[in-house]
Amino acid sequence: MSDNSFGQLFRVTTWGESHGPAIGCVIDGCPPGIPLSEEDIQPWLDRRRPGQSRFTTQRQEADRVRILSGVFEGKTTGTPISLMIENTDQRSKDYSDIALRYRPGHADVTYDLKYGHRDYRGGGRSSARETACRVAAGAVARRAIAWLLGPECRIRAALVQIGALSVDRERWDWDETERNPFFCPDALTAIEWEALLGAVRKEGSSIGALVEIVAEGFPPGLGAPVYGKLDADIASALMGINGVKAVEIGEGLGVAALRGEQNADAMRMHEGALHFTSNKAGGILGGISTGQPITARFAIKPTSSILVPVPSVNRRGEEIDIVTKGRHDPCIGIRAVPVAEAMLACLLLDHLLRDHAQNAWHRNG
Amino acid sequence: MSDNSFGQLFRVTTWGESHGPAIGCVIDGCPPGIPLSEEDIQPWLDRRRPGQSRFTTQRQEADRVRILSGVFEGKTTGTPISLMIENTDQRSKDYSDIALRYRPGHADVTYDLKYGHRDYRGGGRSSARETACRVAAGAVARRAIAWLLGPECRIRAALVQIGALSVDRERWDWDETERNPFFCPDALTAIEWEALLGAVRKEGSSIGALVEIVAEGFPPGLGAPVYGKLDADIASALMGINGVKAVEIGEGLGVAALRGEQNADAMRMHEGALHFTSNKAGGILGGISTGQPITARFAIKPTSSILVPVPSVNRRGEEIDIVTKGRHDPCIGIRAVPVAEAMLACLLLDHLLRDHAQNAWHRNG
Amino acid sequence: MSDNSFGQLFRVTTWGESHGPAIGCVIDGCPPGIPLSEEDIQPWLDRRRPGQSRFTTQRQEADRVRILSGVFEGKTTGTPISLMIENTDQRSKDYSDIALRYRPGHADVTYDLKYGHRDYRGGGRSSARETACRVAAGAVARRAIAWLLGPECRIRAALVQIGALSVDRERWDWDETERNPFFCPDALTAIEWEALLGAVRKEGSSIGALVEIVAEGFPPGLGAPVYGKLDADIASALMGINGVKAVEIGEGLGVAALRGEQNADAMRMHEGALHFTSNKAGGILGGISTGQPITARFAIKPTSSILVPVPSVNRRGEEIDIVTKGRHDPCIGIRAVPVAEAMLACLLLDHLLRDHAQNAWHRNG
Amino acid sequence: MSDNSFGQLFRVTTWGESHGPAIGCVIDGCPPGIPLSEEDIQPWLDRRRPGQSRFTTQRQEADRVRILSGVFEGKTTGTPISLMIENTDQRSKDYSDIALRYRPGHADVTYDLKYGHRDYRGGGRSSARETACRVAAGAVARRAIAWLLGPECRIRAALVQIGALSVDRERWDWDETERNPFFCPDALTAIEWEALLGAVRKEGSSIGALVEIVAEGFPPGLGAPVYGKLDADIASALMGINGVKAVEIGEGLGVAALRGEQNADAMRMHEGALHFTSNKAGGILGGISTGQPITARFAIKPTSSILVPVPSVNRRGEEIDIVTKGRHDPCIGIRAVPVAEAMLACLLLDHLLRDHAQNAWHRNG
Repeated sequence: MSDNSFGQLFRVTTWGESHGPAIGCVIDGCPPGIPLSEEDIQPWLDRRRPGQSRFTTQRQEADRVRILSGVFEGKTTGTPISLMIENTDQRSKDYSDIALRYRPGHADVTYDLKYGHRDYRGGGRSSARETACRVAAGAVARRAIAWLLGPECRIRAALVQIGALSVDRERWDWDETERNPFFCPDALTAIEWEALLGAVRKEGSSIGALVEIVAEGFPPGLGAPVYGKLDADIASALMGINGVKAVEIGEGLGVAALRGEQNADAMRMHEGALHFTSNKAGGILGGISTGQPITARFAIKPTSSILVPVPSVNRRGEEIDIVTKGRHDPCIGIRAVPVAEAMLACLLLDHLLRDHAQNAWHRNG
Repeated sequence: MSDNSFGQLFRVTTWGESHGPAIGCVIDGCPPGIPLSEEDIQPWLDRRRPGQSRFTTQRQEADRVRILSGVFEGKTTGTPISLMIENTDQRSKDYSDIALRYRPGHADVTYDLKYGHRDYRGGGRSSARETACRVAAGAVARRAIAWLLGPECRIRAALVQIGALSVDRERWDWDETERNPFFCPDALTAIEWEALLGAVRKEGSSIGALVEIVAEGFPPGLGAPVYGKLDADIASALMGINGVKAVEIGEGLGVAALRGEQNADAMRMHEGALHFTSNKAGGILGGISTGQPITARFAIKPTSSILVPVPSVNRRGEEIDIVTKGRHDPCIGIRAVPVAEAMLACLLLDHLLRDHAQNAWHRNG
Repeated sequence: MSDNSFGQLFRVTTWGESHGPAIGCVIDGCPPGIPLSEEDIQPWLDRRRPGQSRFTTQRQEADRVRILSGVFEGKTTGTPISLMIENTDQRSKDYSDIALRYRPGHADVTYDLKYGHRDYRGGGRSSARETACRVAAGAVARRAIAWLLGPECRIRAALVQIGALSVDRERWDWDETERNPFFCPDALTAIEWEALLGAVRKEGSSIGALVEIVAEGFPPGLGAPVYGKLDADIASALMGINGVKAVEIGEGLGVAALRGEQNADAMRMHEGALHFTSNKAGGILGGISTGQPITARFAIKPTSSILVPVPSVNRRGEEIDIVTKGRHDPCIGIRAVPVAEAMLACLLLDHLLRDHAQNAWHRNG
Repeated sequence: MSDNSFGQLFRVTTWGESHGPAIGCVIDGCPPGIPLSEEDIQPWLDRRRPGQSRFTTQRQEADRVRILSGVFEGKTTGTPISLMIENTDQRSKDYSDIALRYRPGHADVTYDLKYGHRDYRGGGRSSARETACRVAAGAVARRAIAWLLGPECRIRAALVQIGALSVDRERWDWDETERNPFFCPDALTAIEWEALLGAVRKEGSSIGALVEIVAEGFPPGLGAPVYGKLDADIASALMGINGVKAVEIGEGLGVAALRGEQNADAMRMHEGALHFTSNKAGGILGGISTGQPITARFAIKPTSSILVPVPSVNRRGEEIDIVTKGRHDPCIGIRAVPVAEAMLACLLLDHLLRDHAQNAWHRNG
């Protein structure tokens, strides 16, 4: 048990605070013999890195990852892989006005109620900075997945809604997600978002978002029928991303309004293989993957740290109005995209190893 | 690690199939000294029991629970509590027409792909019958919570939508949930649902639903900021209930459309204590409980086992049209209500023990 | 985490007290497709069963095992295997003289200090009766090992010392262990033990013993170099058997007196394969199996429940002299033999699955 | 589950190889509010540090520990504590003659058989260098124990035998263990050992040893009666130290020769409190601590890396004679002393938190 680890057989433990000397993670259980270097991890971190557009926090972090253990002669050894990222921009400043105040919608107050203190420098472990470690671990998981299953396994996410503006699915183009600062799959919507977010930022406010994630190429059989359900684990992983308040698998909330025959994904044979004619289930039936694309969506709340004043209290129990200055993302949904991909990569690898441990035997005859 | 256990310190392991001699669970980690008898558990099982109205499966099960260990002289001993429920209505019948067929939307096919076989008698571990064990464990958790925190802790769920028909929140009355067969908090809507479900059943179809759950009276500080997040664990627990495809905490999906100032729960002082003026967060900030009511919602798909024919295949790879006869619930959302309450009771007790282990020390000075 | 489970991937959770209605266990993680029936388990339970000679407790238990789940059409399904053994001889008696007294050398007093109560009917979970569940789980593990690795894998234990009387290793014959009531591999020593134990019993006393265990046919590579060490897990499993106070691997305590060159197991080639010329390491180097026989020994203290009076106190804090009547084994070392075998079977299967999850990939190229 | 973690609620994960850039650990679950700085940890590392006498390896490591997270304003925060020690003396050298050879008695061959490769630079994770992380984690555990239970809790170990030379218990003086390079509690024996080890070193050989460890001041109630046994966990922790081949609790192996009445620790009352007149049990009955000193012993084999030639094979399957040059300890038992203390500190703290989670409730009424 650990409040700072995820995964069972591919187990990632993260550590570090936003304003300490470094952050990092330890990956235990990675199979040996997988080619891995810092160059395999860095591009994924760069993708998440803050300060890349005016729509994410202006904090400047190089986010250079170092592999401190677990790799020898260019390959994983099967022993713990320790990754470290030094914090280079913990801008020293005067925290005296923040140290005693609780930001509404933020973990400030619950942290204090739980631990009897808070790390007012930047939220301590509540900071989204911790997610850099998830992205680094996810990059290792991606390498392992490619080595174990081949390169056709893909895990991709896209922002599909900001505020009231959704993408047009007719114009969906995965390549487009790499061309705009929003991971938006629809070029026209990206332009609208640019205007919207510009206005939100000018008003000192923030705004919520919806992200969609798809994992393709994974085999059937991942997950388990009761408490090791693949969808339950995905729900946990996505709800565990900072600011997420809802998770949907496949049809999601929409199933409440459907009839049984509308919701059933019919099965046919195609070139000798089982084939589903639709994927309302999001690639998961009874907690176990079907082999179809695994699809999920999650909603992220607007950043709590805003310039618009909100009624609050301080540690001394005095009522105040609070305004949060600083370098905050107007829409944290943007940076949740690479984080969600990374979490799903780790989770699917973990389930692959778990399924293999129990079920490889009968499959191999 | 275990695919059939949940919880860390209050750990529940369930076993048993729909059509075996019995089902049951083992609860490990329950504090000693708590008054407990079979009479404390039975009423909760009766509430979930099938065959109570024509809107749930007509299977007749007595669902009598037996405590086989862990209780001595009327109190828990701190050792494993073993609960067993015998299966009394595993109607013997001819499965030959089902044994080779995969029901669309059902775990039949994924079970087979994973384990190399399937339990065609009733879905094996995929059967909703397993949830009786969760309800039994939840009843034990409720007793422990009452003993540890006092009787003001309440965990209640209600069905709030079937198909397109939602309850009217103006008419919400928790007592009403005990008076109709739908756990519906709104008497008028319950009447509409009765007509709707009657029609659905006549057509041999099924329909989806939405459930809302609220836990009141729990202290702040439960959960953890990174991977032991209370909301992530709730998401996992609720998504792990059979047929669930979406989970929302607090405002849920709606946050995607909000601005920061709209989503912030302001804080004020009231009689010397911290007080939130709203609860959009659903009682959880940064993964940790605030002390407000913890609120969540989840959507359940329509039952896959229906009389309406759906295209499918069989184990031999032949295309068929499938019709599932048997005693199935037209709306599995109904019986998900007591299951969700039980899961949340177990989970909150687990987090209470986990928080206590680490944080009771500084609170006690 | 669980105080009543062992194993990670082949995970056994036991429950039940000596004087409750039943005892049992739940096995989670067993691979599917393995032939298994109650007839595969019962002989191992019969081997451990009390009341078989006058040298073990005279309690009469049928110890009939029932499989309640996890097996369908004669094969494991990959889902939890629930095993139950009803207690048939919980002789009803007057416990009033025992209920308040602490037996020296027994868990009575620590149980009370921990849980705030004790189960005076027979020690509750401290009773050696719990070990019947380990034997049952071990029988399932043996079936799985045979199915996964073939029949040449053998796990056998023998009693090698009672009091001051050790077996003569020149006369070691494994078959002999099945012919005398002591699991003694040396027929002549068995005769001496019969006389010794007769005298001990007549005096109302008890006596300690030493057990040796050997696992043959297991592959190299089981275990891990740091905290998943195979020898550390064996130490934990054997020290966890009731009454065990010392565990040795290979040369054991003797290594303290050796020089490096005396302790090294030299390596040679034999018919193209690596071959060790000795096995001082007990088949484990650096926490990982070598492929040689895995050998361990453990010492068991004399039963604490004896007729010889010992100074003690009662729950009221009064000094007393205590004499424990009842049906106790004069030498609990005897019944530890099948228990140790079972623990080792479970543990080796668990390590086999764990190693497979991480390392099957590179071995298969 | 993790092969590189130990502990359940106070959970330590270590990483790093002997010849990588650094080693370290992450501690999860430490209670918040405990005063902690690098100065609290460094003295314990210095005590273990190599190169301090000619009887331990001549490798020169500064072993400076850095706290990278989990401490804010001089106190633990309840979040993960990341500790790092840079490797400063990974002497660059030509490994070509070692890279292909397997040292008898060493993990070289099993590492290769398991992972399909080996880290020939210094044993990778098999290196005793990893134990520096255990000592660092143990120092944190000591601070926590002092804060939770008070300063009278002490965990101390001593070397009690090298080869055939044992200490004289009449002359036992704990203070003496800090005055000689052997952690020897008997000044006269220390002089004899100096001569013995000098001779062993000159012969290019190595020698085994026996260590005794005592934990005083811990409360009764730690541990659990079945699989969370305190003695089983101690056995695992001590057997998991590099080179250990036997573990004894209390009377240890000696119990095999005792009668029940000889082995029973009688109980009396003393100033109103329960009091044991002896401690043959080593402070543990039925897996649960009695409140007496917890005592254990373990035997460590002689270092495998010696100058005396031993028959072996190489990776190509050729028979060779091997001589291991390098900076090796002639008696690794010496440096096992601080490691064992650290392991026991972590383990007892972990059990303290576990017991507290379940049992503080009834104790507080």
